[in-house]
Amino acid sequence: MSRPDPAVLETAARLARDELAPRAVDYDRDAANPVESWRALWRAGLLGATVPRTHGGLGVDMPTYVGVIRTLAGGCASTAMTLHMHSTVMRFLDTLGTEAQRRRYFPEVVAHGRLLGSWGSEPAVSLSRTLLMETAIRETDEGWVIDGVKHFCTMALGASYYMVWCALDGGTDMGKALLLSLVPANAGGMSTDGAWDTLGMRGTYSPSVTFTGVRVAADATLGQPGSAVQVGVIEAFALGYAAVYVGIAEAALAFAVDFLRTRVVKPENVSVAQDPTVQRHIGELAVRLDAARLVLEQSAAAWEGADIVERGLLANRAKYLASEVGLEVTSRVIQTVGGRGAYRAFPAERAFRDMRTATLMPPTADRMLETIGKSALGLTEAMFRVSSGPRRD
Amino acid sequence: MSRPDPAVLETAARLARDELAPRAVDYDRDAANPVESWRALWRAGLLGATVPRTHGGLGVDMPTYVGVIRTLAGGCASTAMTLHMHSTVMRFLDTLGTEAQRRRYFPEVVAHGRLLGSWGSEPAVSLSRTLLMETAIRETDEGWVIDGVKHFCTMALGASYYMVWCALDGGTDMGKALLLSLVPANAGGMSTDGAWDTLGMRGTYSPSVTFTGVRVAADATLGQPGSAVQVGVIEAFALGYAAVYVGIAEAALAFAVDFLRTRVVKPENVSVAQDPTVQRHIGELAVRLDAARLVLEQSAAAWEGADIVERGLLANRAKYLASEVGLEVTSRVIQTVGGRGAYRAFPAERAFRDMRTATLMPPTADRMLETIGKSALGLTEAMFRVSSGPRRD
Repeated sequence: MSRPDPAVLETAARLARDELAPRAVDYDRDAANPVESWRALWRAGLLGATVPRTHGGLGVDMPTYVGVIRTLAGGCASTAMTLHMHSTVMRFLDTLGTEAQRRRYFPEVVAHGRLLGSWGSEPAVSLSRTLLMETAIRETDEGWVIDGVKHFCTMALGASYYMVWCALDGGTDMGKALLLSLVPANAGGMSTDGAWDTLGMRGTYSPSVTFTGVRVAADATLGQPGSAVQVGVIEAFALGYAAVYVGIAEAALAFAVDFLRTRVVKPENVSVAQDPTVQRHIGELAVRLDAARLVLEQSAAAWEGADIVERGLLANRAKYLASEVGLEVTSRVIQTVGGRGAYRAFPAERAFRDMRTATLMPPTADRMLETIGKSALGLTEAMFRVSSGPRRD
Repeated sequence: MSRPDPAVLETAARLARDELAPRAVDYDRDAANPVESWRALWRAGLLGATVPRTHGGLGVDMPTYVGVIRTLAGGCASTAMTLHMHSTVMRFLDTLGTEAQRRRYFPEVVAHGRLLGSWGSEPAVSLSRTLLMETAIRETDEGWVIDGVKHFCTMALGASYYMVWCALDGGTDMGKALLLSLVPANAGGMSTDGAWDTLGMRGTYSPSVTFTGVRVAADATLGQPGSAVQVGVIEAFALGYAAVYVGIAEAALAFAVDFLRTRVVKPENVSVAQDPTVQRHIGELAVRLDAARLVLEQSAAAWEGADIVERGLLANRAKYLASEVGLEVTSRVIQTVGGRGAYRAFPAERAFRDMRTATLMPPTADRMLETIGKSALGLTEAMFRVSSGPRRD
């Protein structure tokens, strides 16, 4: 079982504490891209965490990667989530891209600190129910043309390219039609109302974007139609989400522990931490969070040797547990802390809002449980349902 | 079992829909007193809901009262909560006040739409742990002088009087020292930093207030020292909180039902409501919420004939269930609705924030369970612990 790189995790811990956490309050309030925190990640090399070493990146293994995301999420969940989106695009580029594409995009990230987003969601479909894209991409003599509407377009004003999930010629079988295209932020034909005002994860700035005859170059697509669901990368989205959830919950619990150890209420002369009822609450949350973290770590450790079906199961298992435990931990931290837990000036309330919002990322708890249940029942399938595409049996 | 007055509930439903709900978004965003909604309540007679009919109020029974609070909370939880605070002060005034006091204050409410707040919380004590007041009131030749700090001073800029919970001469046995004083909003010596920025219940505007030699008239206290814990009114706070929670959760569930019945995701041709998994989620939430509402209603129906110990149990039972169910319902409504559930433009996210904040009102879940558990174990005590004061055994 591979171990995370301690130097990289130490860098992440320093950034989370010194760079991300102090700015998180402002990004949350303003629902704005965490631009300064991204620059801090870039200076520390973390924008290239999943860029291969041969292209100047850190090329970290999955255990180190989830450790980084989890640690950063404790400082600012939106920064961690956007880094995770970007890092997963790096994985797709590394896996599906040509050497020419890698040589073009990786230096923009490593040398210039540029980010790449991933836009998959659409208003009329549910990625939690079925992997379906209505955004159509069509080939022309001069390249490609994209038409459609994307929802939850994370980093809409902050990234340099967006990996847009399209259906070739409007096909509906994603195993044959799914095609990822890299659209420059300044491409003509993209419009957004800029509306983004949500409960949490506000720093991910994710409005809707409409594509009207957006033209991209002939070499701006990754791999072959359908290949994006066959290479075991899409599953990494959910594993990283689990890392974000664990990080949010750990930060909330750490806040509660600090608070309860110092809080004294009259007429008692000892801290609230001495109350056996409080101890039981914290004990229960700590045990459950430990378990969710261990499952996350074990899933990451098993990643490299796992096939696509196993990766789907590993990711679902980690995400399901992290979701359930994270929601419980952030809610009960507020309860245990009491009135001050709901103050914006303390970090627990942001953790609570971020957690409830972040766990809406696909797949849903229901779909995760189906995958996990199928596996336990001896029935296996890939993480996302497509008419054709990889199945193990 | 007495039944709620249908005409009063109909009025509350109309106000919640037409007056409170449309403004709730603004009061929440601005963390401002719901002044216009209070005026609507006044015009409809509801500021006098618990004022006796002989003094021009509605003099509603407890079943009607909890129905009103629950219904209004579905439109704006902050308006419902502040009305509940005010209405409970009316109960204290009716129970502990002299006829002269009732003739003085009730007309200000009924004829002029004035509100009375209740300030009990303090920074250094926890009402969930013990009923203790450090704010001291001392008698002088010209009346009373109050010194101390109050926390969570609801309606700090909006009410005309505040019923301030004090300890006579700084005593610590609330069964002998607790004295409620009615402090005019314009009394000299009160200062606040005006800081109020919380997760939810933002329209209750509840900053801290410092009392420095605040002078009130000789007739500005209610009842005798210690009597406030002996008359079965303090218990009504928790019953009304339960009504607020049920109302918040009902509104959130109603939103989810509307949303799911109309939402269609491709490639399906029917609404999401047709999904058996969605049906099970909604079914579970509906059953649990029904149960919480029934317990609330039954507690209200039993109120009039109950003694102080029984009232504590009735209130704890209703509040505990409403807390647990309300937290679950508002969280899972967002989960079932999906991404849009976290949008500020939809009501579910405010319900979720209000619920997590409102359930921090004392007593905590732990203390409620202790009371309920003691009763089940044949050990009874009053709802709040004071060294002397009412016990049944």
